[in-house]
Amino acid sequence: MDLSYYMPTKLLMGENVVEKNKSIFSIYGKSALIVTGKNSAKSSGALDDVINALNSYKISYTVFDKIMPNPTVDVVYLGASVAKENNCDFVIAIGGGSPMDAAKAISALTKNNVSKEDVFNSSKYHDIMPMIFIPTTAGTGSEVTQYSILTDDKNETKTSIASTLFFPNVALLDAKYMKNLGRATTINTAIDALCHAIESYLSKRNTSVSEIFSLEAIRLIAKEFNNLKKYDLDYNSRSNLLYASSLAGIAIAHTSTVVVHVMGYPLTYYRDIDHGRANGLVLLQYLYKVNESYPDKINRLLEALNLTSLKEFDNVISSLLGEKENVSLDEIKKFASNSMKKKNVSNSIVELTENDLIDMYSNVFLK
Amino acid sequence: MDLSYYMPTKLLMGENVVEKNKSIFSIYGKSALIVTGKNSAKSSGALDDVINALNSYKISYTVFDKIMPNPTVDVVYLGASVAKENNCDFVIAIGGGSPMDAAKAISALTKNNVSKEDVFNSSKYHDIMPMIFIPTTAGTGSEVTQYSILTDDKNETKTSIASTLFFPNVALLDAKYMKNLGRATTINTAIDALCHAIESYLSKRNTSVSEIFSLEAIRLIAKEFNNLKKYDLDYNSRSNLLYASSLAGIAIAHTSTVVVHVMGYPLTYYRDIDHGRANGLVLLQYLYKVNESYPDKINRLLEALNLTSLKEFDNVISSLLGEKENVSLDEIKKFASNSMKKKNVSNSIVELTENDLIDMYSNVFLK
Repeated sequence: MDLSYYMPTKLLMGENVVEKNKSIFSIYGKSALIVTGKNSAKSSGALDDVINALNSYKISYTVFDKIMPNPTVDVVYLGASVAKENNCDFVIAIGGGSPMDAAKAISALTKNNVSKEDVFNSSKYHDIMPMIFIPTTAGTGSEVTQYSILTDDKNETKTSIASTLFFPNVALLDAKYMKNLGRATTINTAIDALCHAIESYLSKRNTSVSEIFSLEAIRLIAKEFNNLKKYDLDYNSRSNLLYASSLAGIAIAHTSTVVVHVMGYPLTYYRDIDHGRANGLVLLQYLYKVNESYPDKINRLLEALNLTSLKEFDNVISSLLGEKENVSLDEIKKFASNSMKKKNVSNSIVELTENDLIDMYSNVFLK
Repeated sequence: MDLSYYMPTKLLMGENVVEKNKSIFSIYGKSALIVTGKNSAKSSGALDDVINALNSYKISYTVFDKIMPNPTVDVVYLGASVAKENNCDFVIAIGGGSPMDAAKAISALTKNNVSKEDVFNSSKYHDIMPMIFIPTTAGTGSEVTQYSILTDDKNETKTSIASTLFFPNVALLDAKYMKNLGRATTINTAIDALCHAIESYLSKRNTSVSEIFSLEAIRLIAKEFNNLKKYDLDYNSRSNLLYASSLAGIAIAHTSTVVVHVMGYPLTYYRDIDHGRANGLVLLQYLYKVNESYPDKINRLLEALNLTSLKEFDNVISSLLGEKENVSLDEIKKFASNSMKKKNVSNSIVELTENDLIDMYSNVFLK
């Protein structure tokens, strides 16, 4: 049994967790950079909760709310310059994967002189500001991973920086911040978390310990399939999805993702398809491939999903995603070629060629 | 869903894990204090492996091999003075629970001026030396907990110091160090790990996340019951027990133990009964009590154990423990009174009086 486990983030979850644990902010600094997007931090109520907590400990703060979906390299450099100008000594991220991933890069760029050419080179980072993360979606798992995923225009895709420095110090999880999420965001983020868990389980790097997290996340998300479909999610369901997304995050922190995420990135980069949705569109294609070589692994997956066949699972995911986009064969060829450059393709438990990827995309979009 | 999760130790497991990860020692310092007992570090081969690793990075070291079973307060002060005299800047613990627990206190006492009267007061510790732990038994889980448990002569028991500083930086797990363990030690440590997992699961502080670890540990140890009984344990079985003991350790890091450990301590303190065995002797009494109020919880436990009744489980444990010690009613009354002073009694999911504890001890030793 060879395995490794490392996940140093302190995870606190519960109703009003920010208010109940407000003293935690005072441990990490005197001047916070709050990294967030345009809306979700405000509309979820999380920003108000954080500001109240900071005020009660007289911690000053600067709000940097310029993070767009699929954040660019430029915006994290801008964030780092704002942090330096304001002498911030710790970072609070509020939002989905985009603000959280951007916050990691901002925290690192504030403490290290790294050129834009080297931004994806994790060996350039030696220090980082302390980070407290508050997710407002239940998908990315960024609050418990060492990954910062940014738009990589040079390689026309999204690329990950991985460094153990990037684990946040604290993640504060409260499902109340998800209660106003729209149907599409709720479903897409849940599918993203489900893909994390399934890809981790079907990764070459899967171990006894990563599997504890991935299979539990799969079980929890599967229990919410009906509620997701009806878009009828109470606090308890939202909590289950949030908790599952963190468990799935812990799983990929140990295995990384595989071909599903790789094939999803071009759909997002070139066609602006939401990240979670992009993964969900191609997920089943990977499972059908794996089933040819590892039917036992797929049977264990189906057991965790509480389903009896991949076809049944395909129907669940298809009904959650609704009508598919039109993608041409020329686009598919470009996406497949682009995907083959990513190292996580070879992290999949079945070997895949460029033609396999073309077939997989074609099965989704041309049939 | 209220929960918290924090376990910052990096866990690395595999055959020849020390040799394969020897560069890790160079990260933490230039002069190591190796904390161990009289024999197990040497006989297991772990000490040689560590010294080879240190030599290859020219890291100096001092071997402090004075840790006895159930280590005293005096021995950890002695260890700290040896660390200071030799300018040690990090600690390597090799052994079972006694060297590991002692190493935590030594690492802390080297960096903080704390009087012997205050040794159990965790608020007195503000800094600690980095620690690398190498277990040579599969029971304590100390390599992944914040607890240091020492003999407490003032209160005539064993008492725990709990501090998040006490999580080791790294735990290196290799089942080859267990291959020469005798039958009694193997069984007693496996039962200790099983008690950790079961007590955590039946603790008031049990959560969705602690339960992932406790139930998986229970499943893994139960699979080895037959091999334990026959004392027929190959590398794979030893690995399963070692991995399970770490999972059980992660579980109690979040919940602590309950009345079983509390009732075990006087058996060890006054009668020198091995720690794991002491817990095993009283374990079933707690389960019978819990079953009166929470039969569903016991059914889930039995499912994880792959057994059908508590009586069947009782038979498994009894056959592993063999003949019981003679303990008189007068001793039992003293042990019960002593146990009631421990806060972890109230951490049990059923309320227990001193008379309950007298009955529970009596069921074990007087019937």
